[in-house]
Amino acid sequence: MAAAIDLNCDLGESFGAWRLGDDETMFGLVTSANVACGFHAGDPLTMRRSVELAARHGVALGAHPGYRDLAGFGRRALDAAPEELAAELLYQLGALDGLARAQGVRVRYVKAHGALYHRLGADERAAAAFAEALAAYDPALPVLGAPGGAIERAATAAGLRFAREAFADRGYGADGLLRPRGAAGALVTEPEEVAARAVALATTGAVPLADGGALELAPDSICLHGDTPGAPELARRVRAALEDAGVRVRAFA
Amino acid sequence: MAAAIDLNCDLGESFGAWRLGDDETMFGLVTSANVACGFHAGDPLTMRRSVELAARHGVALGAHPGYRDLAGFGRRALDAAPEELAAELLYQLGALDGLARAQGVRVRYVKAHGALYHRLGADERAAAAFAEALAAYDPALPVLGAPGGAIERAATAAGLRFAREAFADRGYGADGLLRPRGAAGALVTEPEEVAARAVALATTGAVPLADGGALELAPDSICLHGDTPGAPELARRVRAALEDAGVRVRAFA
Amino acid sequence: MAAAIDLNCDLGESFGAWRLGDDETMFGLVTSANVACGFHAGDPLTMRRSVELAARHGVALGAHPGYRDLAGFGRRALDAAPEELAAELLYQLGALDGLARAQGVRVRYVKAHGALYHRLGADERAAAAFAEALAAYDPALPVLGAPGGAIERAATAAGLRFAREAFADRGYGADGLLRPRGAAGALVTEPEEVAARAVALATTGAVPLADGGALELAPDSICLHGDTPGAPELARRVRAALEDAGVRVRAFA
Amino acid sequence: MAAAIDLNCDLGESFGAWRLGDDETMFGLVTSANVACGFHAGDPLTMRRSVELAARHGVALGAHPGYRDLAGFGRRALDAAPEELAAELLYQLGALDGLARAQGVRVRYVKAHGALYHRLGADERAAAAFAEALAAYDPALPVLGAPGGAIERAATAAGLRFAREAFADRGYGADGLLRPRGAAGALVTEPEEVAARAVALATTGAVPLADGGALELAPDSICLHGDTPGAPELARRVRAALEDAGVRVRAFA
Repeated sequence: MAAAIDLNCDLGESFGAWRLGDDETMFGLVTSANVACGFHAGDPLTMRRSVELAARHGVALGAHPGYRDLAGFGRRALDAAPEELAAELLYQLGALDGLARAQGVRVRYVKAHGALYHRLGADERAAAAFAEALAAYDPALPVLGAPGGAIERAATAAGLRFAREAFADRGYGADGLLRPRGAAGALVTEPEEVAARAVALATTGAVPLADGGALELAPDSICLHGDTPGAPELARRVRAALEDAGVRVRAFA
Repeated sequence: MAAAIDLNCDLGESFGAWRLGDDETMFGLVTSANVACGFHAGDPLTMRRSVELAARHGVALGAHPGYRDLAGFGRRALDAAPEELAAELLYQLGALDGLARAQGVRVRYVKAHGALYHRLGADERAAAAFAEALAAYDPALPVLGAPGGAIERAATAAGLRFAREAFADRGYGADGLLRPRGAAGALVTEPEEVAARAVALATTGAVPLADGGALELAPDSICLHGDTPGAPELARRVRAALEDAGVRVRAFA
Repeated sequence: MAAAIDLNCDLGESFGAWRLGDDETMFGLVTSANVACGFHAGDPLTMRRSVELAARHGVALGAHPGYRDLAGFGRRALDAAPEELAAELLYQLGALDGLARAQGVRVRYVKAHGALYHRLGADERAAAAFAEALAAYDPALPVLGAPGGAIERAATAAGLRFAREAFADRGYGADGLLRPRGAAGALVTEPEEVAARAVALATTGAVPLADGGALELAPDSICLHGDTPGAPELARRVRAALEDAGVRVRAFA
Repeated sequence: MAAAIDLNCDLGESFGAWRLGDDETMFGLVTSANVACGFHAGDPLTMRRSVELAARHGVALGAHPGYRDLAGFGRRALDAAPEELAAELLYQLGALDGLARAQGVRVRYVKAHGALYHRLGADERAAAAFAEALAAYDPALPVLGAPGGAIERAATAAGLRFAREAFADRGYGADGLLRPRGAAGALVTEPEEVAARAVALATTGAVPLADGGALELAPDSICLHGDTPGAPELARRVRAALEDAGVRVRAFA
């Protein structure tokens, strides 16, 4: 059986007059779109356009909730209570799903954004509140996230499917964690190497470690970045390399 | 057959640390709650509490979208484009419906707030965009609003049910319009008179005019105010007068 | 020489249609007003009213900057970078000072709000950025805060006066820290006891500890709360007790 | 005596993670920078950078207040009351001036943004409130705006200097008004023609009309656009043409 993998990317990150990323191109290259829901980015018109782009390109529409922090783009830790995170998840998810339903499509999964993503990997109470709220909304919606964290345990405990993502352009440690930005080998910038790591992840489930050996990640999805210069070119390269290697690129959800 | 009427009220208008109105009491007195959806008032936790109160009291949950204007409480005219209003409606409606679904209930109708309410009564293009977006979301959701305006025509054209509301504590002109605030007879403040007008509206469909005669309004719902001093007492009086008159007080939706 | 003390209170915490606290009364009872500057509370019209009230009552106008977090009222920790805190301080301080200048008065001191207040007590880099920005704006503006924290050291290092505040309605530990909310003796609720503690702070500089002995705090100001039920009554009691004890109640700045 | 003219441009229009325009370049080409103050664009860090760029390039720092409308970039009419506009002006102006003072510079003039700019040209009450608030803050601060509108009269009545701006890339009617976007001749897109019109404005005070003849505008400043593709190139061309024509390009304030 041929290997298969999903490619996901944060999209729909414009706000009002401000544009971010090249959504027109990136929606044509990924299979899952994590669409900002208004709290850290994404106004309703931008979200509607994202729904349209997802529908037109056959891309799975993902809700990408974040902290209520437009000025910080959701990248700053914010000590919101778990019950508040749960309510904010439902608000953002429902908002995107509302725009989707009006166009005859539906949100197919949820992935948290930025500082909230990191918190859900580490904070068991927050992860439980998040997963339980999602299960109450729709138990068929999977969560996409980093393997091995609090949110994987919480999603599983809540009866949700947890889909694992990996990064082809980031270095990992033997502990399975991303090497911190600034550390040697944290960023993989050579396009051919990124593409090769994506193929390795899709075909073997593992990435090579800097010190030798390989880390088994068994990802359902590879996360691409959409807002860096050259992002579309890199995405194209990765996708082409996967297809050349006989990997089927399709939505995980 | 006994007369029946709905009592609706704007509720869930707190935001963060700020409280507005006496929701605990008012949810026990009305049959339909217009719940703020975050743009002019109402944070996700407040909205969740409103959903709980609606469910507990058997009150119909209404989405109450407004302009994106927290500082102005949605009371200031804002020249948003019709397509933006449509997307903002779906965003706010979906958000409240998301919180509701997670608790096993659903939004049952939509009523616009403040300056948006007024605009939808007068602006045919805005009203059409609003109604068409709502019909695309769920054609079974009725719109509650003032009779005779653009939104009634647009809702009907979009295949939606339009429910008419009337005010028992406001004076009307012979043209069917509310007398402007500041004009003689604009406000009815005597509780017994408000109650009597509510009974008249529910049993005859008409209110007496200041100059004699009566205005036929045939309302489906009477709008009560929740954020004024004495609001719960007045609501209690109105409800008691209706029940004493044999009127069945129940949600229109 | 008669003892003297300042009474400060967080005021101007309304936002748009939402009212918080009884500013009309409290401005008549305190000598320093910590006025919210729009990031956690306080819109421009509310700020203008606070400036007017401060001028009318001869109360020292204090800038009360907080995190950009209206939904959380600035009470939630937010991981903003020190340089961002510095810019946000200047923005909020300048905004209030702008409204003040137009009425012929000036901001007389700065006190941070909520989670930012706590952070500045503990985070040396944030405190240094804050104090240096303030010194660059006006080195004659004192900082009001809790004694012994990072911000006291940073303010002193930046050449600013640091004014110490104490709480008459909170219990302290022998370490000089407030007892955590929820712990025994954390809150002093009996008005007579609060008043007696205020008098002790003003005349001796110390408060009694629960375990016996006394904690020397040597405050320049006592912080009163304005947004709790009974706040004006308690403030009146405290002020009367101070005046009965011969303490001069006047602004520290 | 050689002719002289100012070149102004809206700058500092980024917000958080979102970038707009090429400020690094444009600050080097203009003599007056209208810097967004946080309500329609411009967070405190962006504003601080704009102050730094203005100081480094010797550009006059202008406050560019707008409606509180991040989602609409201040381009949508918003029915704020005149007293609210006055308070919001002081808030935004004070905020930018606060950031400027901390770097040893000062705001040198005020120009309203977007829909507020248009309103101040037409609404006498709003213009009066705006001008009086500015005069109360600092009567030495000029207002930059379109000639002949309510704000020119209000500024003059309040004892403020009013500086007139003209557009080299927009067509005018014989009535002195800009031709509406969409009308023939509304936009001048040919760079040489824009440059020639700028030179005409600076040396003769007039622009040619489409139907023949010329419109006397006697501008103090020519407004350049900073956020369109090719904006820096066009600004460079205009500036070079002015200097080639012997016009002195310098701040009006």
